[in-house]
Amino acid sequence: MALKGNVIVGQSGGPTAVINSSLAGVIKASWKHGIRRIYGMHYGIEGLLNEDIVDIEDYITSGQDLSLLKRTPSAFLGTCRYKLPPIEGNDALYEKIFDILDKRNIEYFLYNGGNDSMDTIKQLSDYALAHEKKQKFIGIPKTIDNDLPMTDHCPGYGSSAKYIATSMKEIIRDNESYGVSSPTICIVEIMGRHAGWLTATAALSRDIDCSGPDLIYLPEVTFDIDDFLSRIKDLAEKKKSVVVAVSEGLQTADGKFVCELGTSNDHIDAFGHKQLAGTAAYLASRVKEETGLKSRYIEFSSLQRCASHLASRIDADEAYNVGYIAAKAAFEGKTGMMVTIHVESREPYIETYDMFDIHEVANVERKVPKKWIINDGTYVSDEYLDYARPFIIGAISPYTAGGLPMHLTMKKKRK
Amino acid sequence: MALKGNVIVGQSGGPTAVINSSLAGVIKASWKHGIRRIYGMHYGIEGLLNEDIVDIEDYITSGQDLSLLKRTPSAFLGTCRYKLPPIEGNDALYEKIFDILDKRNIEYFLYNGGNDSMDTIKQLSDYALAHEKKQKFIGIPKTIDNDLPMTDHCPGYGSSAKYIATSMKEIIRDNESYGVSSPTICIVEIMGRHAGWLTATAALSRDIDCSGPDLIYLPEVTFDIDDFLSRIKDLAEKKKSVVVAVSEGLQTADGKFVCELGTSNDHIDAFGHKQLAGTAAYLASRVKEETGLKSRYIEFSSLQRCASHLASRIDADEAYNVGYIAAKAAFEGKTGMMVTIHVESREPYIETYDMFDIHEVANVERKVPKKWIINDGTYVSDEYLDYARPFIIGAISPYTAGGLPMHLTMKKKRK
Repeated sequence: MALKGNVIVGQSGGPTAVINSSLAGVIKASWKHGIRRIYGMHYGIEGLLNEDIVDIEDYITSGQDLSLLKRTPSAFLGTCRYKLPPIEGNDALYEKIFDILDKRNIEYFLYNGGNDSMDTIKQLSDYALAHEKKQKFIGIPKTIDNDLPMTDHCPGYGSSAKYIATSMKEIIRDNESYGVSSPTICIVEIMGRHAGWLTATAALSRDIDCSGPDLIYLPEVTFDIDDFLSRIKDLAEKKKSVVVAVSEGLQTADGKFVCELGTSNDHIDAFGHKQLAGTAAYLASRVKEETGLKSRYIEFSSLQRCASHLASRIDADEAYNVGYIAAKAAFEGKTGMMVTIHVESREPYIETYDMFDIHEVANVERKVPKKWIINDGTYVSDEYLDYARPFIIGAISPYTAGGLPMHLTMKKKRK
Repeated sequence: MALKGNVIVGQSGGPTAVINSSLAGVIKASWKHGIRRIYGMHYGIEGLLNEDIVDIEDYITSGQDLSLLKRTPSAFLGTCRYKLPPIEGNDALYEKIFDILDKRNIEYFLYNGGNDSMDTIKQLSDYALAHEKKQKFIGIPKTIDNDLPMTDHCPGYGSSAKYIATSMKEIIRDNESYGVSSPTICIVEIMGRHAGWLTATAALSRDIDCSGPDLIYLPEVTFDIDDFLSRIKDLAEKKKSVVVAVSEGLQTADGKFVCELGTSNDHIDAFGHKQLAGTAAYLASRVKEETGLKSRYIEFSSLQRCASHLASRIDADEAYNVGYIAAKAAFEGKTGMMVTIHVESREPYIETYDMFDIHEVANVERKVPKKWIINDGTYVSDEYLDYARPFIIGAISPYTAGGLPMHLTMKKKRK
């Protein structure tokens, strides 16, 4: 097969620890298939619209570069949160995009992101089909939130899970070390607006050497503050260290976010999502007020999505594979699809890959199944743990210099 | 030398990633010197006063146990924040302590902690000398704050530095990944009430692949909010990503802690220190209010002191050595001293050990030298970087199972 068209690849939405492994997969597939030029969108589709486009081989030319790229957190090409407007009434914008692609003879368009980013693939592939454009559009799944449908799980989730479970083990030990005086209540806030997949990973810390968190609250369940406070009081009578994992997106029965109850630092992002912060801080202050117990809070913040030093090997490998497979599918003429992961066997762990129509994927959020949420909405079941345990196995060790991980940056290698 | 007395060892103050390496050193030295019983204070001197004393060989009996102990974060024996009252007028309390020791034929008392913990060694060794008690008291330095005098640096500091510098690199990459829209200001809060040693470690992230933080504010310098806001505005005109490292203990010219300016969540701990929280949160909200720029904050919280998965090899080795040397000194009859570390050469790195009179150490806080704080109090100098770089070299890899680090816990091995 002699391919004449060029490739463009973009990264979109929140970065992950392994998003660049997918980029490495796209580059490797392009090399294997003799693609002449591999373009990168600098800051996603928003960069493309500004014609801020880079030639990837200005920065990456060898297998060694790819190895370092895989170990580099956050979006190498830069990312964006930008949603294309509806096709209807916006022909000029869409024609502009295709002009930009045509000018560079780009035939293969690969976009790595979550729900919102898959909408970009849907819109562009629909437009291309309706207007008989030659370009092929394939989505590469990526989200620490693990909320894409049709796929067993999403690349990015496993590494965040490994970071959260490792840090939870260390936090629980730290919290347990003070024991003589009054109990300490530690509330840990974890990302995930509407789906509790990431918060659930806190349960992975439970093992023979760690009790795990005492309570886990996911956004799938309505949060009852009085019930929460009464459980904290009961636990504090039994043990000196109480650790609770809460999702940033907890909502009370009247539909209010818990983080909005204390302060009013809400803010609407480009997709109309509220920027959430402060659920754990608010709950820790309520615990102190209402029970007099010593309380503190921890927010994993962006560390949970960029800690490549704790990336999972299985996650990094899968991220690479979905990138490679997406590029290969585009080269074979497929369009309007997203690559998905299927788990043939969880023990031993064997995964396979498939493709799904992008219309079944874009803008759909998959939540944690209700049957996996137990103890009146305060924990996750063993079935969830069996589901998630394989994702954190193994490690992709960083390359280090002077005791710190090395990262690949956008410094030009050639003129 | 035939030693007849037993050993007791305690851990005190904030835990670190390598505090248990010092415990391992004490145990190994005790085994080497044929000590019959090695006791542990369960929750430091507070546990001792409650006669909550454990037999360490109920839990640790082999070199394999010691290896896992070294890789276990937070105080294995539990810790406390408890300061002994003055000797004068408290004879009964001191006699009680010596009775508890005598009852178990304990001759060697080793205490691992920071400034406040060294006060415990001072009081007890003074009392023993004045009352002709047989017990020997030696202090083992430990503090992530690095503020003990007479020693080049403190065990615990290097591993926290490695955690902070690694995480800063990852946070800076994450913050840089959004570039098309408006600049993002990210303010990172680091522990250290009065000394900026830990905040300074943020500068270690600077390398050919990382710009490092744009500004670093230590508590040694009076903080001027207006000057800070004007620097942020200037930076935001030049670059899309601005990352600032701030100490939790920043104070304004009128002596107020920055974290107290927004909310009133202050609280006095047992040593009369204010519990600080919220410096970065307050500054991020001020940036948003006064400049309209997008801002966020990150607190490393207890992760910076318990992340054994990123422990430094040099730090872990030194922590082990000061524990071993402290025990050996006690066996040789020394008392009322703390072990210190001296650096013969920083490149190649060669350290030696010494002992200092505890009266020169207890309750003294060492600050970052003014000459190392540059750019009108907004950065640290290359001299500081030369000082600190060796501490983060190398890694002590965790033992893992199922993708997570394994820790040693207080589960009895024998009846």
